[in-house]
This record gives sequence, C-alpha cells and structure tokens, in this order.
Amino acid sequence: MHLSEKRQPLLNRVRRIKGQLEAVERALLEDADCATTLQRVAAVRGAVAGLLDEIVENHLREHVAHPGLSDADRTRGAEELVAVIRRYSR
Amino acid sequence: MHLSEKRQPLLNRVRRIKGQLEAVERALLEDADCATTLQRVAAVRGAVAGLLDEIVENHLREHVAHPGLSDADRTRGAEELVAVIRRYSR
Amino acid sequence: MHLSEKRQPLLNRVRRIKGQLEAVERALLEDADCATTLQRVAAVRGAVAGLLDEIVENHLREHVAHPGLSDADRTRGAEELVAVIRRYSR
Amino acid sequence: MHLSEKRQPLLNRVRRIKGQLEAVERALLEDADCATTLQRVAAVRGAVAGLLDEIVENHLREHVAHPGLSDADRTRGAEELVAVIRRYSR
Repeated sequence: MHLSEKRQPLLNRVRRIKGQLEAVERALLEDADCATTLQRVAAVRGAVAGLLDEIVENHLREHVAHPGLSDADRTRGAEELVAVIRRYSR
Repeated sequence: MHLSEKRQPLLNRVRRIKGQLEAVERALLEDADCATTLQRVAAVRGAVAGLLDEIVENHLREHVAHPGLSDADRTRGAEELVAVIRRYSR
Repeated sequence: MHLSEKRQPLLNRVRRIKGQLEAVERALLEDADCATTLQRVAAVRGAVAGLLDEIVENHLREHVAHPGLSDADRTRGAEELVAVIRRYSR
Repeated sequence: MHLSEKRQPLLNRVRRIKGQLEAVERALLEDADCATTLQRVAAVRGAVAGLLDEIVENHLREHVAHPGLSDADRTRGAEELVAVIRRYSR
C-alpha cells in the first residue's frame, strides 16, 4: 500500500542502480582500469545503502508508526525490521 | 523507562567496550604489533555496531511499536530513528 | 590484468546481483508484501558489500602488494584504496 | 614503527571515544531520554569507524605499500588487512 504510493521513486532508484551495475559489468568486460571498477562498485554500494535506508524508513512509518494499525500489525512490522537489522547490520 | 528495565545488560555492554578500547590504548602506548591494534579496533567496531543495533531495537519496540503510545509519541519515536539512520547509516 | 584473470567470477557475481535487483523491481511493480521487498534489498546490500570486498582484496594484492611493482605504482594503488575507504567507508 | 610516529593523534582519538562512551554510560545510569542515548551510541559508531579507517590507512601505507619492505612483509601486511576486511566488513 505505501509502496504503491511511493513506488515510482523507489523504482527509479532501483533502475538507476541497475544502470550503475551495468557500468561495472562493462568495466569488467572491457578490462577497464582497476581503480575505475573499484570506484564504480563502491558507488553502487553507497546507492544500495541509500535505497535500503529509504525502504526501512517507509516500512517504519507505514507498518510500525502509522496511526490506525492494530497492535498486532505494529508488532509484526517492528519484528520484520528487527530481523533485517539483525541479519544484515554489522 | 524501557532503558531502566533493560539498563543493566546495556551498561554491561558499554563497559565491556570500554575495556576493549583500553586494550587498544595499551596497544598504542606499548607500540604493539600493528596487526594486533588493527584487529582490536575492528573488534571494537563490531561491538559498537552490536550495541547500536540493540539500542535501535529497544527504541523501535518501546517508542514506536509499543501498544498504548499516542500517535504523536509514535511519530516522534519513528522520526528519532529516521534521523539516526540518515545521519549514520551508509 | 588481474581482472582479466579473475574477471569471470566477478562478472558472475555482478550478474547475480543484477538478478537480485530485478527481483526487487518485480516486487515493487507487483506491489508485493513490503517485508519481502525489505528483505530483498537488504540481501542486495549484503551481496554488493561482498563484491566490493572481493574487488578491494584483488586491488590490494595486485596493485599494492604484488612483487615487482614499482614504488610509484604501489603508492598509486594504495592511494586509490584510501580514496575509496574515505569516501565510502563505515 | 609507524605507530610510534603517528601514535599521539591515534591515542587522542581513542581517548575521545572513551569519553563519548562514558557519556553513553552516564545516559544509561541517569535514565536519560532514550533518543539521547541512541544519538550518542550512533556518534560512537561513527567515531570508531573513522578510527578504524585511519588505522587501516596507516597499515596499508606502512606495511603494504612502503618502499623497501620485503615481498614477504608486504604479503603478510596485505593478508592482515584482508583478514580484517573479511571478518568485519560490510
């Protein structure tokens, strides 16, 4: 639901990252300068981290904090976030 | 409030990290092997990240998802988390 | 040079990540469950971090530590890594 | 060796982080506002990440790239970095 509202900017971000990954692919195929590849992959990492932050923020606002959710919904939304934090944070 | 309940384990974690930092300090003062210092600092980073995760989880459960909070409290709790994510995530 | 040797496994990794990103795209287009999208993006982040680590390791071994490089090459290779660490770390 | 040269600024950083950790400890002991604790811990994480970057850079310059190291020293220095990246990255 909140994704259908905010879907377009997220899709745009995902597609931009796909374009960045394709630039990494080309760098590897063309045996480009290693420093170039390194910088491109580092830029992808930054972009994916930004995307994840945005998705986490949406989830927090819409599935945990949103007025009118049931207590059970909120608890579930919070535990979904906790699972992601635990598995992927460091 | 939730911190007073969960305060002791968090305090223990903080103190353990202080002990780890003191080991880094000693390594620097004694001009220890550089690889040792490197590993100790990396271990501190892991421990601080784990502490932050735990605090974020507590905050999420107690200040955003907790049944019985007002809508305003929840919104505030969520925005506090968003601020931390934005400023310090990568 | 070291990329042409190690190019194929890196390319495979990049393409797998592209596939994962396409799964995120589909989740957004089909308005999938938000928790699913969240987990998929988090998995992409983990995979990109792993790819970056591998590229950093290759760069370190081939462009900084490799026997037979000139001092100038080594210094340049090291500064390229430092630039990536500074811009994208934490 | 490089640490004895650069030891003082690193020691200063470590001691500043210890001070920040003590502020977290006080916040927990005084049952301070949870958002305050959260921000302080997040700041500690940022500071430790910055310290680790600095130590990694020193190690890279002095134990991998430095002119006049033997090939064996360089290889060892690089593998020490790789071990830290593998264990603690993402």
